[in-house]
Amino acid sequence: MLGKQSLQFMNKPYMISSGSIVGSKEAAGPMGKLFDKVGYDDKFGADTWEDAESSLQKEALEIALEKAGLKKKDLQLVFAGDLLGQSIASSFGLSGYQLPHVGLYGACSTCGLSLTMGSMAVAGMFAEKVACITSSHFASAEKEFRFPLAYGNQRPKSATWTVTGSGAFLLSAQPGSQVRAVISGATVGKIVDYGLKDSMNMGACMAPAAADTIRQHLEDFGRQPDYYDKIITGDLGTVGQQLLFDLLAEAQIDITKQHMDCGIEIFDSERQDTNAGGSGCGCSAVVLSAYILKKLEEGVWNRVLFLPTGALLSKTSFNEGQSIPGIAHGVVLEHYAG
Amino acid sequence: MLGKQSLQFMNKPYMISSGSIVGSKEAAGPMGKLFDKVGYDDKFGADTWEDAESSLQKEALEIALEKAGLKKKDLQLVFAGDLLGQSIASSFGLSGYQLPHVGLYGACSTCGLSLTMGSMAVAGMFAEKVACITSSHFASAEKEFRFPLAYGNQRPKSATWTVTGSGAFLLSAQPGSQVRAVISGATVGKIVDYGLKDSMNMGACMAPAAADTIRQHLEDFGRQPDYYDKIITGDLGTVGQQLLFDLLAEAQIDITKQHMDCGIEIFDSERQDTNAGGSGCGCSAVVLSAYILKKLEEGVWNRVLFLPTGALLSKTSFNEGQSIPGIAHGVVLEHYAG
Repeated sequence: MLGKQSLQFMNKPYMISSGSIVGSKEAAGPMGKLFDKVGYDDKFGADTWEDAESSLQKEALEIALEKAGLKKKDLQLVFAGDLLGQSIASSFGLSGYQLPHVGLYGACSTCGLSLTMGSMAVAGMFAEKVACITSSHFASAEKEFRFPLAYGNQRPKSATWTVTGSGAFLLSAQPGSQVRAVISGATVGKIVDYGLKDSMNMGACMAPAAADTIRQHLEDFGRQPDYYDKIITGDLGTVGQQLLFDLLAEAQIDITKQHMDCGIEIFDSERQDTNAGGSGCGCSAVVLSAYILKKLEEGVWNRVLFLPTGALLSKTSFNEGQSIPGIAHGVVLEHYAG
Repeated sequence: MLGKQSLQFMNKPYMISSGSIVGSKEAAGPMGKLFDKVGYDDKFGADTWEDAESSLQKEALEIALEKAGLKKKDLQLVFAGDLLGQSIASSFGLSGYQLPHVGLYGACSTCGLSLTMGSMAVAGMFAEKVACITSSHFASAEKEFRFPLAYGNQRPKSATWTVTGSGAFLLSAQPGSQVRAVISGATVGKIVDYGLKDSMNMGACMAPAAADTIRQHLEDFGRQPDYYDKIITGDLGTVGQQLLFDLLAEAQIDITKQHMDCGIEIFDSERQDTNAGGSGCGCSAVVLSAYILKKLEEGVWNRVLFLPTGALLSKTSFNEGQSIPGIAHGVVLEHYAG
């Protein structure tokens, strides 16, 4: 470990391919044209919302493999997770691939966790090629955590809209024909609990965890925020972003110039009625695949701290009056000069 | 990777300590006197079953740390998971430790998955010391997957009884004053789905996955079953054990001499009315800590293949008529000669 919570990779894993698939609302947003595939029926041909989410994971991995000219047998490990109870979107989505399967849970931070664990497997020379996959679906998430869709509940301004989408990423020990980015390090987050209990304000629940991981990351690596072209959180939304700035200001850290939040960018919240922004495991994953990696590939950005954020609640813990702790896992992505 | 699904560790992680805590029924079973701690009130001082399960994880880790003479600050990573939706037993149980947290999901195979990932972190020299923790609780599991306890449903003979308990394990790159065992390899399981749908017969749902991982493990390492003193599955129970023997017989593999199942051993099913045996993440974890590691420590056994088995279902997928796929992750534990 580097410092208290970080990993520095000597054999830096290459991100050789990625795939993104989203639903109709995401396709109608500002990044709509960048995603690899769009399903205009949000059930994606399935009978249930959960099955629809599973099909997203399956397709995202298929896209990533196809783009890299690889077959499933070229992969040695899969790291996957989602928001649903017992991670059923991953289990049912990926069982057909018949690959050694590492199930992960980090709520909406799972994309960061999967890239961290996948990088560990590749950098530690345990595997040559691995896949990291996460997903979320607006309808399955509302059912899992809040109200039935048909109930038509009102959403406060602090609420976020769960992204329907999945992102899959292939990491390799060797560069191959195409490299989207290089992973040079990671910071594994702690569970941070400020005692907040409002599941309609997840940004506030997660901001303390994001602030904690960013602060520790900069300390562990001995870096200042301007080392990065961008510091990109997962799904804090507008409310969480302001809290993140405030919390970091208390630690004399200013990331206002570098900060971007996938949840804020993925929707046009005025026009699309998404309140504080987008959220869900799929949010940071599809923005990473479609937008962030593009900027890194083109060399517009050279160094990015990518930090998906998760709110660790279940409907059971919520209904029992428990707080909603947060967690954020950070990954350092760098432009590959070839 | 060794072969298709396995890892061989050059820097073999040392298991330097472990802790087990169980409920009253487990304490009344054949292994009752071996566990480190017993809670005679199965709520363990908490207000809810979920909170009771969280307190199990907290205590198991405390016991493991105390036995090793270590403090939480000596640990660099925690690998944890449980059966509940969004792994709340782990999140709420371990948040107080304020350690970098890797959330895992493998249903009742999570103990094997956490030891595999923890070993990867230590063997890959990413961390010096890590903790691996899993838990289950009879009452929180019944609520999560089946019927309210007060309903008093009848249980078929194939049903298993979820173990109330938690096991915590400390892995280290250096031997330290005490070594319970050495981890020399692991086999990461695939999701295996035979289309079974009976959540009251989890042994049958998981047996195909156990057979698959055992077969692949022996192939990857080029070993015969008699290489091991014991091949120990997690919670197949009596029904699953017979199916495992039958499935392996089809592949000309006979493990009947070496096989033991934690679920069969932990209860006296005639006397304790536990039908096919015990189950749950906690089942294999507490048997490993209290019994298997003792035998390895004493040199009664020299080599053990420890293979927790998981059934990947949620109440949602079950109610939607989905099948119950299985997964099994294997870990090779060896006697430490000093």
